[in-house]
Amino acid sequence: MIDRLIEKLEQLGNPSAEGLDPTSATITEDIREEKLELHGKTPKAVAEMFTAFNRELIDNLYDIVPAVKPQIAMYEKYGLEGIRAYIETIDYAKEKGMIVIGDIKRGDISTTAAAYAAHLEGVTIEGEYYDLWQEDAVTLNPYMGFDAIEPFIKACNERDKGLFVLVRTSNPSSKDLQELSLTQLCWGPSGGNTVYERAAEYVREWGKQAMGNKGYSKIGAVVGATFIKHSKRLRTLMPGVFFLVPGYGAQGGKASDIRKLFDKDGRGCIVNSSRGIIAAYKSDLRYGDHNFAEAARVSAAYMRDDIWGDG
Amino acid sequence: MIDRLIEKLEQLGNPSAEGLDPTSATITEDIREEKLELHGKTPKAVAEMFTAFNRELIDNLYDIVPAVKPQIAMYEKYGLEGIRAYIETIDYAKEKGMIVIGDIKRGDISTTAAAYAAHLEGVTIEGEYYDLWQEDAVTLNPYMGFDAIEPFIKACNERDKGLFVLVRTSNPSSKDLQELSLTQLCWGPSGGNTVYERAAEYVREWGKQAMGNKGYSKIGAVVGATFIKHSKRLRTLMPGVFFLVPGYGAQGGKASDIRKLFDKDGRGCIVNSSRGIIAAYKSDLRYGDHNFAEAARVSAAYMRDDIWGDG
Repeated sequence: MIDRLIEKLEQLGNPSAEGLDPTSATITEDIREEKLELHGKTPKAVAEMFTAFNRELIDNLYDIVPAVKPQIAMYEKYGLEGIRAYIETIDYAKEKGMIVIGDIKRGDISTTAAAYAAHLEGVTIEGEYYDLWQEDAVTLNPYMGFDAIEPFIKACNERDKGLFVLVRTSNPSSKDLQELSLTQLCWGPSGGNTVYERAAEYVREWGKQAMGNKGYSKIGAVVGATFIKHSKRLRTLMPGVFFLVPGYGAQGGKASDIRKLFDKDGRGCIVNSSRGIIAAYKSDLRYGDHNFAEAARVSAAYMRDDIWGDG
Repeated sequence: MIDRLIEKLEQLGNPSAEGLDPTSATITEDIREEKLELHGKTPKAVAEMFTAFNRELIDNLYDIVPAVKPQIAMYEKYGLEGIRAYIETIDYAKEKGMIVIGDIKRGDISTTAAAYAAHLEGVTIEGEYYDLWQEDAVTLNPYMGFDAIEPFIKACNERDKGLFVLVRTSNPSSKDLQELSLTQLCWGPSGGNTVYERAAEYVREWGKQAMGNKGYSKIGAVVGATFIKHSKRLRTLMPGVFFLVPGYGAQGGKASDIRKLFDKDGRGCIVNSSRGIIAAYKSDLRYGDHNFAEAARVSAAYMRDDIWGDG
């Protein structure tokens, strides 16, 4: 998947992913009213709103944005119907040729980790194969160590899939555990001396088991854009590890900082924006409910140019 | 929820939870064949197997085991239909008066964490309230810090729900990050000097915002039974924090060790076993497919007595 991702980023000249994280507040009035009328005040109505909203976004983005990153929590909130909208969204994005990064942040061990790996691996039932989730890559949490990652590596290699493991997240309280400094005895092979630096070293090491053909591993890292000093250090600690960078825009991450995370060929990162694009119509008076997807397209193009420094 | 849990444990004299983690290998032949015949080799067939299997287990356990802990990964593996079986299992366990701990190990931030909190909080759609997931408590991952926990605290207090935050997990590679030793500057207020000890101190601190009436907080901790020296230290670091203890049986945790984690009144822990009970019929020649639930009941009673030291 990492080679496909790199090709797609270069083909579109855009190293960004669109976070498909709808909430009841981002849905436009006309979509809301239509679905409430059809399905009442039900989870099914919200799920149908999300699917309709996402489809129109995808229609307006797929030729300029290489990837989408649906955040499963937004869908899981609405139970079974919500999950259905998550799956339908992925299905449609893939139909349009987009790469799908499922932001699921799962993390567990043993047979449980192997079960979660079905997100990438699919499942075989009495000889019949099903790819029920269809993500190209998913995000994972490293707190439980390698046991939480291992079952996914097979899927990366055998089914051309990818991972992004949380290393340094973009939120304020990421410092609670991630920033803790280690006693010298626990420093890593490259001098990693905090929890997140050690996580980085592990990700680099694990990634050697799943190298792509363009110098990057199929096991990437989530590295927030809000702590740029740390992020730059992580770039040094993780050569060959692709970064998924949240925090651009709404969370305060700046393009000028993010540019420092690319390698000398302008590769190595995919930057995510969610609210800034899908809700762009709300903050720009030129747009209204009826052209929310056009507003998203303009906003996505602005972001692309902003990252390259042409904005 | 923590007060209800403590009452229920004392009422049944059993501090254990049954892990409802079915796999295609734990399902009995007659259930498998019936569902394959009805639904073909489909995810729906597997989901129906899981629901039927779990219902019979619950029927045979609810009067001696206080709680169930379904592991959502096992269901998520089978996509939408699998999630349906997870929800139906919870529904049935609650109908039978059992306390349900959803082993979901979610962890995210901001609006995303708030969306996951719907597991405990339910969701309101245009004024209509839905409790779509119905868990009494869920497990969470602390890698992203307090931001990942905070939205759940309101649900704990306002809807009588609970949390168990991963502190020290039972798997071998939990050492990768959890056991790292900290430089003295980063030691915690009670002298916590490893990552998991600092996580423990945070959980204790966070828990003060959601105390129950029986001396324990609604914010508990996941503390594996396989590293008993660490677990005992965690008991000292986390007074007033209820432990969810995985690792008994199949993973090697011994009852004699687990007993050391209770407080002087024999409270403070709920011990989980999954495969050892739901698949008991496979390892005991006295039982066959037709009495798998009876085998589970006998095995659950043995576990209860084993924990108290009467086994």
